Amino acid sequence: MSSPVSFELLAQDPASRARRGRLHTPHGTVQTPMFMVVGTQGTVKGLAPDDLRAIRTQVVLGNTYHLMLRPGGARVRELGGLHRFMAWDGPILTDSGGFQVFSLGDLREITEQAVIFRSHHDGSRHLMSPEVSMQVQADLGSDIVMAFDECVRLPATGPEVQAACERTTRWLDRCVASYRGPGSIFGIVQGGLDRELRAAHAAQITARPLAGYAIGGLSVGEGKDDMHDICAFTAALLPHDRPRYLMGVGTPDDLVRGVSAGVDMFDCVMPTRNARNGTLFTRAGRLSIKNARYATDPGPLDPACACYTCRTFSRAYLRHLYHAEELLVHRLLSIHNVAYFLDLMTRVRDALEAGTFTDVLQETLTAYPPREAGVRGVSSV
Amino acid sequence: MSSPVSFELLAQDPASRARRGRLHTPHGTVQTPMFMVVGTQGTVKGLAPDDLRAIRTQVVLGNTYHLMLRPGGARVRELGGLHRFMAWDGPILTDSGGFQVFSLGDLREITEQAVIFRSHHDGSRHLMSPEVSMQVQADLGSDIVMAFDECVRLPATGPEVQAACERTTRWLDRCVASYRGPGSIFGIVQGGLDRELRAAHAAQITARPLAGYAIGGLSVGEGKDDMHDICAFTAALLPHDRPRYLMGVGTPDDLVRGVSAGVDMFDCVMPTRNARNGTLFTRAGRLSIKNARYATDPGPLDPACACYTCRTFSRAYLRHLYHAEELLVHRLLSIHNVAYFLDLMTRVRDALEAGTFTDVLQETLTAYPPREAGVRGVSSV
Repeated sequence: MSSPVSFELLAQDPASRARRGRLHTPHGTVQTPMFMVVGTQGTVKGLAPDDLRAIRTQVVLGNTYHLMLRPGGARVRELGGLHRFMAWDGPILTDSGGFQVFSLGDLREITEQAVIFRSHHDGSRHLMSPEVSMQVQADLGSDIVMAFDECVRLPATGPEVQAACERTTRWLDRCVASYRGPGSIFGIVQGGLDRELRAAHAAQITARPLAGYAIGGLSVGEGKDDMHDICAFTAALLPHDRPRYLMGVGTPDDLVRGVSAGVDMFDCVMPTRNARNGTLFTRAGRLSIKNARYATDPGPLDPACACYTCRTFSRAYLRHLYHAEELLVHRLLSIHNVAYFLDLMTRVRDALEAGTFTDVLQETLTAYPPREAGVRGVSSV
Repeated sequence: MSSPVSFELLAQDPASRARRGRLHTPHGTVQTPMFMVVGTQGTVKGLAPDDLRAIRTQVVLGNTYHLMLRPGGARVRELGGLHRFMAWDGPILTDSGGFQVFSLGDLREITEQAVIFRSHHDGSRHLMSPEVSMQVQADLGSDIVMAFDECVRLPATGPEVQAACERTTRWLDRCVASYRGPGSIFGIVQGGLDRELRAAHAAQITARPLAGYAIGGLSVGEGKDDMHDICAFTAALLPHDRPRYLMGVGTPDDLVRGVSAGVDMFDCVMPTRNARNGTLFTRAGRLSIKNARYATDPGPLDPACACYTCRTFSRAYLRHLYHAEELLVHRLLSIHNVAYFLDLMTRVRDALEAGTFTDVLQETLTAYPPREAGVRGVSSV
């Protein structure tokens, strides 16, 4: 039986490790490298499916932790699954819930068998395990199902990280054994910032034949240097013929650097979260719509952008809405920011086909210079 | 020179005072009777122009008080006028600012010449007068310009109401004398709940040849009985060949009763405000999406509605979004509620053409029974 989700590698960039590919899913084929839009509670914050289609969203990410607590996996299944519930008929990736259980939940007990936690909403008691995560993700009807892993907070010592890696591998086997749903499971390589642990865990995880592999445990507070070093190191250890997913990353410069390291899939709350804070991404770099200079600016957020917001409204109008605390501004700014991320990835794919990826990489790093001192150049990635 | 705004009376309902007409404006022709959607601060709360077009919005109402304070009339003019600023190319009616100056502003001094008030935003000091209101409305580029009137809070005594009426008439003459803009001025008949004062003021105001006449000072706390009695009494005193506008009204039952009394134009914040509170209007009456019974309901808000929300999402999903406090819910519920009001008026117009207005009237009064005891029936309107 072929996997519900399969990857087709179309081309390898001769000047970097970047790849151009296609991911086939039960809800359609998407082009890689790609950015996936985060829809935490069954909605991309501020955006409806018609907005997502208009800006050519390919994949929406759903959060298992949030949806299992509210409205509940069984409830979503009864209502026809997450695609129907949120009226998104394109592919959906769901995370395992692990990251939120460990970061948002009030942890009570962690054993080999399961994690007991209390909901951050109402304190109600819940159990999460590989089997529960698989059940909820199957109830949601997810296309791409992330294995349930143990997340370790950095800085953690070597033995602690190693123990989490080994448990993650055992939990992966339980995920594979228990999953009965329409999608395919991706495994997650952990190992913190330790190359030896990353290599050992990558060997364990990739020994399991899975539809795809993710690089987990990054973008959790470490510096950009460390993040990109470990990302590139780990990506090189993953099978050539499977998609590679760098979880929870990142800024525009992170995306193009990740692509140059051979990553195919990204997700991040940044475009929608920054939109709500009034920070916009443009080809010329970031801008804050709160700035007084925009009060009389009749131009669009980004002259190079074709989204509804940029085609229709001036910076002056958007600043007015922001200051007047009008609801509409969140939708308009989110449309633009998500469109920027999706367009960036479209430009990356076009450039990979045209053999001009280095140009997009350099343009993006110029507009979004890595902020830390001593960040290593692109050639090191 | 013909008036920028003109009215065409198409038909008179034989069974009531209801009228079917057309209003021609510099930004297009609209069908009456109609409901105008309130866009207080240069946006209909939660809705973009593409949403407004999709639900066949005819006219948007802008608030002069809010826009003069932020971003300012001159600023909007510099940015191309309110149509361009908010990207709404259909007709715009602006109120005079009077109602908000008297209700929101911190009043400092009211004289024959002007009103001095402090902004409710920052306490800054401002002057409002007939001339200022006309200047701001001209700066905004409004199509339908409301005369600046003195609002009296009920209950007010006869002499106080009468003095306000007479001042309103003098201020109307100053409005007409000073207005230099692309639109047409509507006069406003005041007079509280006193028939004699209403009659006297209607005679004064209609002695001025204007593009339209409004019934002001209603829906400010009086009972529905009183409101509809005075509305019907006043509407009958207004010229047959001019549009009649009942300001700030109302609920679905108020609209159909107003139409039966010969009113052509309505506006109210109710559809968007109630949407934000989770109260929805449907052909079967009101519903609160917060209600637990909807948690498992796969049906649309209103099976008879063709709006994006009803075509796309279940009550269960909308309840989930409401409880999760997701931004998207405000847009989706506002789309539906405004669509309900606009569709109701479309059904009213169709029924007037088909000679079946009484059916729509009765259906609406059945779904929205007037709430006060002893409310008089339709025949009395």
